[in-house]
Amino acid sequence: MKRGFGSDNHSGISPEIMKAIALANVDHALAYGDDEWCARTETLFKEYFGPQSKVYFVFNGTGANVLCIDAMCRSHEAVVCAETAHINVDECGAPQRVVGCRLLTVDTPDGKLTSELVKTRLHGFGFEHHSQPRAISITQSTELGTLYTLEEIHALADLAHSYNMYLHMDGARLANAAVALGCTFKQMTTDQGVDCLSFGGTKNGLLMGESCVILNPALDVDMKYRRKQMTQLCSKMRFIAAQFEAYLTTGLWHSNAQHSNAMAQLLYREVAALGVKVMYPVQVNSVFVQLPSQVWHALQKEYFFYDWDEAHNVVRWMCSFDTTEDDIHAFVAALKRLL
Amino acid sequence: MKRGFGSDNHSGISPEIMKAIALANVDHALAYGDDEWCARTETLFKEYFGPQSKVYFVFNGTGANVLCIDAMCRSHEAVVCAETAHINVDECGAPQRVVGCRLLTVDTPDGKLTSELVKTRLHGFGFEHHSQPRAISITQSTELGTLYTLEEIHALADLAHSYNMYLHMDGARLANAAVALGCTFKQMTTDQGVDCLSFGGTKNGLLMGESCVILNPALDVDMKYRRKQMTQLCSKMRFIAAQFEAYLTTGLWHSNAQHSNAMAQLLYREVAALGVKVMYPVQVNSVFVQLPSQVWHALQKEYFFYDWDEAHNVVRWMCSFDTTEDDIHAFVAALKRLL
Amino acid sequence: MKRGFGSDNHSGISPEIMKAIALANVDHALAYGDDEWCARTETLFKEYFGPQSKVYFVFNGTGANVLCIDAMCRSHEAVVCAETAHINVDECGAPQRVVGCRLLTVDTPDGKLTSELVKTRLHGFGFEHHSQPRAISITQSTELGTLYTLEEIHALADLAHSYNMYLHMDGARLANAAVALGCTFKQMTTDQGVDCLSFGGTKNGLLMGESCVILNPALDVDMKYRRKQMTQLCSKMRFIAAQFEAYLTTGLWHSNAQHSNAMAQLLYREVAALGVKVMYPVQVNSVFVQLPSQVWHALQKEYFFYDWDEAHNVVRWMCSFDTTEDDIHAFVAALKRLL
Amino acid sequence: MKRGFGSDNHSGISPEIMKAIALANVDHALAYGDDEWCARTETLFKEYFGPQSKVYFVFNGTGANVLCIDAMCRSHEAVVCAETAHINVDECGAPQRVVGCRLLTVDTPDGKLTSELVKTRLHGFGFEHHSQPRAISITQSTELGTLYTLEEIHALADLAHSYNMYLHMDGARLANAAVALGCTFKQMTTDQGVDCLSFGGTKNGLLMGESCVILNPALDVDMKYRRKQMTQLCSKMRFIAAQFEAYLTTGLWHSNAQHSNAMAQLLYREVAALGVKVMYPVQVNSVFVQLPSQVWHALQKEYFFYDWDEAHNVVRWMCSFDTTEDDIHAFVAALKRLL
Repeated sequence: MKRGFGSDNHSGISPEIMKAIALANVDHALAYGDDEWCARTETLFKEYFGPQSKVYFVFNGTGANVLCIDAMCRSHEAVVCAETAHINVDECGAPQRVVGCRLLTVDTPDGKLTSELVKTRLHGFGFEHHSQPRAISITQSTELGTLYTLEEIHALADLAHSYNMYLHMDGARLANAAVALGCTFKQMTTDQGVDCLSFGGTKNGLLMGESCVILNPALDVDMKYRRKQMTQLCSKMRFIAAQFEAYLTTGLWHSNAQHSNAMAQLLYREVAALGVKVMYPVQVNSVFVQLPSQVWHALQKEYFFYDWDEAHNVVRWMCSFDTTEDDIHAFVAALKRLL
Repeated sequence: MKRGFGSDNHSGISPEIMKAIALANVDHALAYGDDEWCARTETLFKEYFGPQSKVYFVFNGTGANVLCIDAMCRSHEAVVCAETAHINVDECGAPQRVVGCRLLTVDTPDGKLTSELVKTRLHGFGFEHHSQPRAISITQSTELGTLYTLEEIHALADLAHSYNMYLHMDGARLANAAVALGCTFKQMTTDQGVDCLSFGGTKNGLLMGESCVILNPALDVDMKYRRKQMTQLCSKMRFIAAQFEAYLTTGLWHSNAQHSNAMAQLLYREVAALGVKVMYPVQVNSVFVQLPSQVWHALQKEYFFYDWDEAHNVVRWMCSFDTTEDDIHAFVAALKRLL
Repeated sequence: MKRGFGSDNHSGISPEIMKAIALANVDHALAYGDDEWCARTETLFKEYFGPQSKVYFVFNGTGANVLCIDAMCRSHEAVVCAETAHINVDECGAPQRVVGCRLLTVDTPDGKLTSELVKTRLHGFGFEHHSQPRAISITQSTELGTLYTLEEIHALADLAHSYNMYLHMDGARLANAAVALGCTFKQMTTDQGVDCLSFGGTKNGLLMGESCVILNPALDVDMKYRRKQMTQLCSKMRFIAAQFEAYLTTGLWHSNAQHSNAMAQLLYREVAALGVKVMYPVQVNSVFVQLPSQVWHALQKEYFFYDWDEAHNVVRWMCSFDTTEDDIHAFVAALKRLL
Repeated sequence: MKRGFGSDNHSGISPEIMKAIALANVDHALAYGDDEWCARTETLFKEYFGPQSKVYFVFNGTGANVLCIDAMCRSHEAVVCAETAHINVDECGAPQRVVGCRLLTVDTPDGKLTSELVKTRLHGFGFEHHSQPRAISITQSTELGTLYTLEEIHALADLAHSYNMYLHMDGARLANAAVALGCTFKQMTTDQGVDCLSFGGTKNGLLMGESCVILNPALDVDMKYRRKQMTQLCSKMRFIAAQFEAYLTTGLWHSNAQHSNAMAQLLYREVAALGVKVMYPVQVNSVFVQLPSQVWHALQKEYFFYDWDEAHNVVRWMCSFDTTEDDIHAFVAALKRLL
């Protein structure tokens, strides 16, 4: 399939990752994480997120998110999140089934929670008829391609902690956010008070590899059993660790994210120049636009992409680490033809 | 780590699999299974398991087993299995948490269920205080390295169906069984009346790839939602499908399993020649032996392997697709020295 | 405690119910529903809800609601309901824990769903990342004391069925609704296409007794096991059945509901005469008013009642089967004094 | 139905209980436990079980047991119990569905666990593939009508605590046990180190009323939310509390249990005199006998009772608080006629 703008997980595997897997493919290694690649990479994560942190490798983003929620909440507790949050919209109810908890959703203009929005959900404490708010979950970068500033993250962490709650960050696209903000992972998470993190690699060049990073040691309880019981324990775990090791040590996380962000900027400029309405600030690697329905239906015949909000004719275009300028020019040319 | 006998998932990735992943790493593909590799491999599975079958790729064996159980049982129902079954002993309670059902276990001499053993659990039908037996689960080859004959599988399928129940096969090592029995996968499953199957690849040369194969179309209900909700939906699924495609079309499943089985035979002959007590018939790629405790503790200083039954000094040795004759001779030499 | 307006479950037991319990307290009866009181009352329910219906007695409203949801939905499915629905707000996440499903909530002006509101949640069918809408749940009378007309119920049932979904009615206060609408239970449920019903008695004079009434026989699958497994099977069930038998055959359901509705009308007229803002039409036995915060705090020192919406100074007053005109006059006098 | 020997929950309600309910049926009381009856009875429980204890009233024995298990275990943990335990056999998998944990069962000769038997299940600690043993559950008196001595309870508590585990007692028939052992409830529970208790009343004269008694304050965490979320919160809770208050303060628990125990002794002597084989020591209110199948089938035409072990022709006869000597003589006469 030709390269398009459907999703950043339509792309394949970065060459650095393939090489790392090949290098790890030697002789035998203990399964389930007791190997040298996991040991090295766990240490590496402590460098990236602070010595108090602890990483648990998992298969996919759903696994990382549900494991984080399970670390924070019992079934009678609740997670406050944006209505548009991936954990709310795109997990087919995995948190409900696996953890048994409630999500308390808030409508947002741009996919971002604020203290004011969160507070509308912070009531009923001590009242046994209501699920008890225990965590706030934010996505960085958000599902709408927007970003929290470090100060905004800090404020939400403070709010959470003042209510004896935790702050979770869904970082399926954390690298794109870090590049855009020009900060380190630690500056964006641990330093702002984030308690646990879903840290993704798959959308930014890995074959398959996500992680649950416990940043607040108080949450590091029985994690290995939880991961196993919810079906997320990998046997040949060295091959996930080796991917993350290469991802971090080669700078691939940065170069891939920088590229996909830059491609989104190019795409944004090109479509904006055509007069197309762009819905949200383009801060990372996605562009949301409003198009006449006949235009996007016609364009979808040439390129796969998702209807984001069918009722309002909004579609989403994602750039990947392997998107080229030529890809964008060809796509924009097709769009121009149809407009 | 030097090659040893701890587990067949201590081995790495077969070269054919690495090559298949590399070949699939081109441009873009739709995520979550809507790609050409998945399409081709799903068709291939129909050739291997019959046109009525349907495969769902998952990450690991726990995922395959729990997805199969979820296809067969509601939470108020129960699965009859051997006390030694992986789903009972080694999933940290995943079936209980994810499906919410009971397992009704039976002690067996050799890891194998029989109609007589299963029938001891088939009562209480219609009595609301008792979980209702809805499935029988067998492992082929078993956790003790033994095999069901085709006739034995057929008898258990008949028993299950006569009680309006289903037969599940945990085939984490199905290739080893097929090679040992000299039959096809279909002859061992569909043709005997097996209703659903966990079909593994990871222990026999894949990087990471397992599958839930629905053989009885009546069970093919809402499977894609179940897989997603239990956190087992892979985004870049082409890379699981491509592994299975190579696994099946290159004959790798057969050659790898044949080799590991043969190595287990060699190991068996060598240790039996030393007078060591072998606990079960060596039918596939594992050898269970009883050793004086000081011997196996000393041997474990040189080689990693699992205590299987500490109370009875029984340990398990597994051969892999990459085990060499030299590996065995070195291992047996070490053992001989310690005896 | 003196009689007040905190909740209709602050009242005690109607004399007719006490008598029925005493009459059922003879010798022995089989447990778990195999007794003559259950047999008779089950037949009685068929008269009230149609011959196709089937009642399952449970302990409380949470049990009835969760059992109904379990009858309609698998964990990967979802129930559309009002944001204010009891199943959403006041069950501490019981549907999420016990069934594992999602609730898709809709903001409403008056606690009532409409086809237009429900349709905003009816999308993503067939898309495995989204919980699949499978049921609509309405409360009759609603948590805000409002009523659906028969036509409105019919329209929502039609909508549900056109999407291959079910319509559930939470009828914790069904008697109040039936009295207010001047219709039978059957006219309000079965005849309009309601598929299953939580039918309550506790708030209207029973000691303790609720029921899950399956109106659509297609949903009557494995119900007895579900009830047992979710901890809602009563051993001495004759004492729940006997209460419902008296409730229905003596006309108690009607007289109690008629009285509490009438008392709410009186309360409404009295407080409206004081110029107090009443928030919703007073259609059954509750009155929601907006009060200056110092007034309701002062009034709460004399009478217990719930803050309904603290942010907007809205409180709820409920009338019971045992509320007297004197109770209301005394309460209104206290309010008048404080205004 | 004439009085028989099917179950102690076939009996009705003791007059003292009916009176207590009637006395509590005055005016209004706050719902969900914030009433004077609950307050008084909670204090009373502290007198009976020690000041550190805390009672949570629930509807039924399943609720009490599941709530206790939820207090002790996370889903990845396990409860060691007898194969014959009610929580294993007769809850239709409620612990699995609601808590998601495993039960590790042990075969016993007489329904009683011993340290030796429990230890066969205490392994795999720290191994993430295995559910972690976290609790031992015993039933007092057992499902087979046998009793643990105080010393035996103490030994199991010590064993549990030495493994950082908890001891749960299923006391659905605790009163029968206390009478038989001539001890107080506290001597049998708190004083021996029991951590939490399912304390029943329904089988010994209550209309409906069970309780979860937390004896170890470390387990008293979030209990009110757990009770609510698992559907066991009663609205008009005063009527459960009032029953327990009368049960304890009038000595009803003792007189009823003493009577049913005495009736079982009489039944035992009479059937033993007929040469019928009695299976277990008759220590409380049940008699298990082995009968020729044609005899018990014929006897079942006159009296309802349960086949306990159909394969071995064992049936169970239970005496209740309302069983009379005449009932026994008539029953034995019928049996004699059939033998």
